[in-house]
Amino acid sequence: MDWFRLSNEAEVASPALLIFEERVESNLRRMIEIAGDPARLRPHVKTHKLGPLVERQLALGINKFKCATIAEAEMCAQADAPDVLIAMPAVGPNVARLCKLAKKYPATRFSTLIDDAGAMQALGLAAVKAGLTLDVFLDLDCGQNRTGIKPGNEALELYRQATTTAGLKVAGLHAYDGHIHEADLTKRRALYETAFGPVLAFRQQLESAGLAVPVLVAGGTPTFPFHAEQTDRQCSPGTTVLWDFGYADKHVDMPFLPAALLLARVVSKPGANRLCLDLGHKSVAAENPHPRVRFIELPDAPAISQSEEHLVIETPRAAEFSVGDTLHGIPRHVCPTVALYNEATVVRGGAAVGTWPIARARRLTV
Amino acid sequence: MDWFRLSNEAEVASPALLIFEERVESNLRRMIEIAGDPARLRPHVKTHKLGPLVERQLALGINKFKCATIAEAEMCAQADAPDVLIAMPAVGPNVARLCKLAKKYPATRFSTLIDDAGAMQALGLAAVKAGLTLDVFLDLDCGQNRTGIKPGNEALELYRQATTTAGLKVAGLHAYDGHIHEADLTKRRALYETAFGPVLAFRQQLESAGLAVPVLVAGGTPTFPFHAEQTDRQCSPGTTVLWDFGYADKHVDMPFLPAALLLARVVSKPGANRLCLDLGHKSVAAENPHPRVRFIELPDAPAISQSEEHLVIETPRAAEFSVGDTLHGIPRHVCPTVALYNEATVVRGGAAVGTWPIARARRLTV
Repeated sequence: MDWFRLSNEAEVASPALLIFEERVESNLRRMIEIAGDPARLRPHVKTHKLGPLVERQLALGINKFKCATIAEAEMCAQADAPDVLIAMPAVGPNVARLCKLAKKYPATRFSTLIDDAGAMQALGLAAVKAGLTLDVFLDLDCGQNRTGIKPGNEALELYRQATTTAGLKVAGLHAYDGHIHEADLTKRRALYETAFGPVLAFRQQLESAGLAVPVLVAGGTPTFPFHAEQTDRQCSPGTTVLWDFGYADKHVDMPFLPAALLLARVVSKPGANRLCLDLGHKSVAAENPHPRVRFIELPDAPAISQSEEHLVIETPRAAEFSVGDTLHGIPRHVCPTVALYNEATVVRGGAAVGTWPIARARRLTV
Repeated sequence: MDWFRLSNEAEVASPALLIFEERVESNLRRMIEIAGDPARLRPHVKTHKLGPLVERQLALGINKFKCATIAEAEMCAQADAPDVLIAMPAVGPNVARLCKLAKKYPATRFSTLIDDAGAMQALGLAAVKAGLTLDVFLDLDCGQNRTGIKPGNEALELYRQATTTAGLKVAGLHAYDGHIHEADLTKRRALYETAFGPVLAFRQQLESAGLAVPVLVAGGTPTFPFHAEQTDRQCSPGTTVLWDFGYADKHVDMPFLPAALLLARVVSKPGANRLCLDLGHKSVAAENPHPRVRFIELPDAPAISQSEEHLVIETPRAAEFSVGDTLHGIPRHVCPTVALYNEATVVRGGAAVGTWPIARARRLTV
């Protein structure tokens, strides 16, 4: 039987997010193989938001995690992760939430990012008030122009200031190169080298100034193989654990398998060559143009329209499908797709064996 | 103070979905005014997914609802709605879920759509097996080419077949004209008339054939004013209850107020004219191109980039904003935006007064 079909598929209501356990396992082992050692990995959990998957990573020796929200950090803490970086500057009420989190889960070492003097001082004050010391990474802008400070003297001064700010402990540098996703491996490597030259020079500048840089957390998925070659940093791939066709098509050098599929059903047949599926943009990430999902059964069928709960595709093979038939889709971008579901259906040995809750709320308890 | 600012804003973690109660109330009263009588309304709950808002509608005399998922239908039943149409053909395990729902909430009359003989027979069989009679509407395709059958002889035969299918009771016709969203009122009306001519002719054809058509459920938001003029149908506006700038810009003839805002904060200032906000495409619907959100403070600031948790905008006024400052955004498309949140922060009298849970799960209990 095809790997993507479930023996008990008739029991799984659609639309559903399927997680193929054996494929996740394969992806995790490949990640460790590329990094050389699980201790060098700090995978991003925003891709999957699954506590049981954090537990599986811990069992394989991965004990550091990166996340984007306080809820994701709490999910990691609930899974007994010892080291969690919230890779987002804490502002407003999230400062107090971060302190609350650190107090609630003392066995987990939480850290976050700084790139602004005012926000850093507010964070230090809140930590002191809570009787805590929070770990902080200086966030470096290495070309994405999203968050972070450019390497240079101003950044050095901020870093130095952090080392003397009560309530804070400087953990090192964070540099995310999410703007680099060139398909061509040679070009991608050149872009990576250009982006990381200033980061590495800045680290030297800090060290020359007598400022210790305990850790450098570097990169996302497309540059993961390059960062992995260097033993002086932690690697933060994200999508690698579930993979998707956006990265699979672009980064053929990367040995990962699509491990998350969307189960959809034909709900109507509007016209001779069309199928309407129950997979609207409330069920598959929509920030990219179509195709937002590629069906294994109909990989070339173009999307004619998509609304909140419907996707109409066109195919000369429409007559082969009846209302109620299933299709299996690989999402183009799996991370925000997962965030649309409340639970994942876990597949093992070709059958749906249960569900995992997805921590997609913005707030768990804190 | 500006209507959109909260006196206790510093306590609301961002990103957050704010629902302004007085504005919702105003929108509901306008809906009733346009319809002439709350009994003529069957508003779509997919826009808000809020049980407390269903309760508010019930208090105003609106007692019929339309929804897209079984979870939304259950949310309505939990709020004691007496009449709920699931405007989606039931296939696969959703057939059994629908039967379970009907048995669990006997005080609510559930109905659904049919447009395919095979799916209809499966539905009837399941109802008989469950000891139920399910109400069904024949879904007519009036031009959207998404679900539904074209008016005509084949449709008439399906309708006739439904009247003799055990387990089913024919409730009438459903015709959604979601493809009509012309800004120009005259053009929009002409498109509506063209689309609905065949629907009305088909109803006559059914009646001439001795087939009763108890109810016609018609239209979405842009054609709501036209359908409201006719007393022979139920109106199903959706977005009207919360409104958004997508419809507000296009349909200036409609008297609704934006009642849902997104609260965002500046998390970084990447470059002189740029602000990075904590409002990624996991926090605002992304199926449309930018602008996906319009900030009241910076209505013309273009989006430079958006990722899962970040939005970078450009403005010559960036220097006026510090890291931690709030901005208030009207979403372009509120329905899928609401579905990204777990809870809504309810605003009354200019202050956040509590939260409402959003029923965004695909499954509540059934």
